[in-house]
Amino acid sequence: MKKISGRIAAALLSAVAAIAFAAPVSGADPLPSWNDTASRRAIVEFVEKVTQEGSPDYVPAPERIATFDNDGTLWAEQPMYFQALFVVDRVKALAPQHPQWTTQEPFASVLKGDMKTALKDGEKALLEMVMATHAGMSTAEFEQIVKDWIATAKHPKTGRPFTEMVYQPMRELQAYLRANGFKTYIVSGGGIEFMRPWTEKVYGVPPEQVIGSSIKTKYEIRDGKPVLVRLPEINFIDDKDGKPIAINQHIGRRPIAAFGNSDGDLQMLQWTTAGAGPRFALIVHHTDAEREWAYDRKSHIGQLDKALDEAQARGWTVVDMKRDWKTVFGASSKQ
Amino acid sequence: MKKISGRIAAALLSAVAAIAFAAPVSGADPLPSWNDTASRRAIVEFVEKVTQEGSPDYVPAPERIATFDNDGTLWAEQPMYFQALFVVDRVKALAPQHPQWTTQEPFASVLKGDMKTALKDGEKALLEMVMATHAGMSTAEFEQIVKDWIATAKHPKTGRPFTEMVYQPMRELQAYLRANGFKTYIVSGGGIEFMRPWTEKVYGVPPEQVIGSSIKTKYEIRDGKPVLVRLPEINFIDDKDGKPIAINQHIGRRPIAAFGNSDGDLQMLQWTTAGAGPRFALIVHHTDAEREWAYDRKSHIGQLDKALDEAQARGWTVVDMKRDWKTVFGASSKQ
Repeated sequence: MKKISGRIAAALLSAVAAIAFAAPVSGADPLPSWNDTASRRAIVEFVEKVTQEGSPDYVPAPERIATFDNDGTLWAEQPMYFQALFVVDRVKALAPQHPQWTTQEPFASVLKGDMKTALKDGEKALLEMVMATHAGMSTAEFEQIVKDWIATAKHPKTGRPFTEMVYQPMRELQAYLRANGFKTYIVSGGGIEFMRPWTEKVYGVPPEQVIGSSIKTKYEIRDGKPVLVRLPEINFIDDKDGKPIAINQHIGRRPIAAFGNSDGDLQMLQWTTAGAGPRFALIVHHTDAEREWAYDRKSHIGQLDKALDEAQARGWTVVDMKRDWKTVFGASSKQ
Repeated sequence: MKKISGRIAAALLSAVAAIAFAAPVSGADPLPSWNDTASRRAIVEFVEKVTQEGSPDYVPAPERIATFDNDGTLWAEQPMYFQALFVVDRVKALAPQHPQWTTQEPFASVLKGDMKTALKDGEKALLEMVMATHAGMSTAEFEQIVKDWIATAKHPKTGRPFTEMVYQPMRELQAYLRANGFKTYIVSGGGIEFMRPWTEKVYGVPPEQVIGSSIKTKYEIRDGKPVLVRLPEINFIDDKDGKPIAINQHIGRRPIAAFGNSDGDLQMLQWTTAGAGPRFALIVHHTDAEREWAYDRKSHIGQLDKALDEAQARGWTVVDMKRDWKTVFGASSKQ
């Protein structure tokens, strides 16, 4: 009997585990981290409407395209964009090969740990460091550098891996959309090759559904093998006007739902909602200084000003993180 | 009895029709237009090898990326690229709005029907006409222009719609790959927005899996609605070196199989076959002057010279259209 009980217990445990990690199934709550507020209801109402066959709002599955900004929408972006922290780490790692950096700005200040001085000229300094650290190697080499960093680097405030600084409610939302026939894309100002090495594992979004900023590459034969070499030259900045342009270039269809958190997402939300038929736009408003950060109209990172006005004027869904989310980072964050 | 026979006949007819148009099913020949030659056997052997779970050559479905050139690989490209014929038709249609074209080259020669003189300076003249006819309108307007043209224009030699000038064996091959978990992409030197309006219907390839050459676009608000306006400025030429670069940019994974017909596809085939694990490269060799056209090393369109040498040196599959294909254009072509 004991042996049988053991087996039953094991089977029960295994069943519980299967339920805990399973994709949402009919009956189970697909959005357990969302409070029952207007934001959640708007999401569910939209998804039910476009997936109900025979309904005037029905949208065939291939046209169910949903685009998500990344920084501040799917993962945190404070105290600065995580890719900027990656750049800083790369400057430090490459400094021995560039002795001139100890006196040359913005590198000198970065090496002294003085980010404020390093970035006093804003994006120009960051761009210079991106070019110095993200180019010169093959795409395969860069992929490995990103994989190594994302596996080991820690957030300066929380001490957690960056892949644990992702918003659990948004992951559930992505999975919920996919379970309802949506194709989920990332459309981010971040580097396309900085995101692709980990987005599939973290968000369930495969490389071909990741759109981002990029530098140019060059095709070369090295030791008889073709490689793509990364050049220190901007190819495309996937921000603001760039987002609808890149969506058209990569996807060739207009999304029916778009998710962002800042003025950099405004044009993507405009473009998405201007299409015919049912459309959905959502903005994540950072209102939770305790569990995350609180910032909007005057923030240097993730400024949300015009898009907040437009959201209110047009009736887009604005997520109030503090009110709408039961948890921010999920179980891994111990919150 | 007569009534019943009629019903039975109708049912039989309907069953026959269902079989004729059905997707390949287990047991049915998925490649009925291919003769049983080395080319066909190489295709089937590769597909069986990468899809057999537990085999050392097994490739998980998400990594089964197959890229196809379009002109000369999926549809014909003689007597000139079909998009060049579209450009000619657009020049004629727009001529009344551009009276200066009657004396300005290359437009003047096109309007006189003298393509030889019009194109005597090669690609430069064609590019000038592309810019004059493919820009200035919104992406939605251009899409409608392409749809109208593809629905009505006829091939100058065969008098058939261009969508009937597609290779039936290649359509079967694409469907066969998809039935085996592959994601099929088009990677063409042709215009990305010239192809997307019809590739899903003709090849089963949705817009987001079409990669091509492009011009720049600009995001604008017109009458309160956002539009993307097409600009007379090259964004990207998806040919030769451009193909692996665009594959990396759009897909972010290396294909495991690639299909082309000319030297413009060489770098895509090199890039594809240089990856680890099982790889497949195929070149369509135009050898059938009777059913299609015969051309290779010295052709101005679809020149196949270096890639033919490299195919032979590396053991890539070279399709001899005359020997390997039972039909070229399928039933619609009456061949």
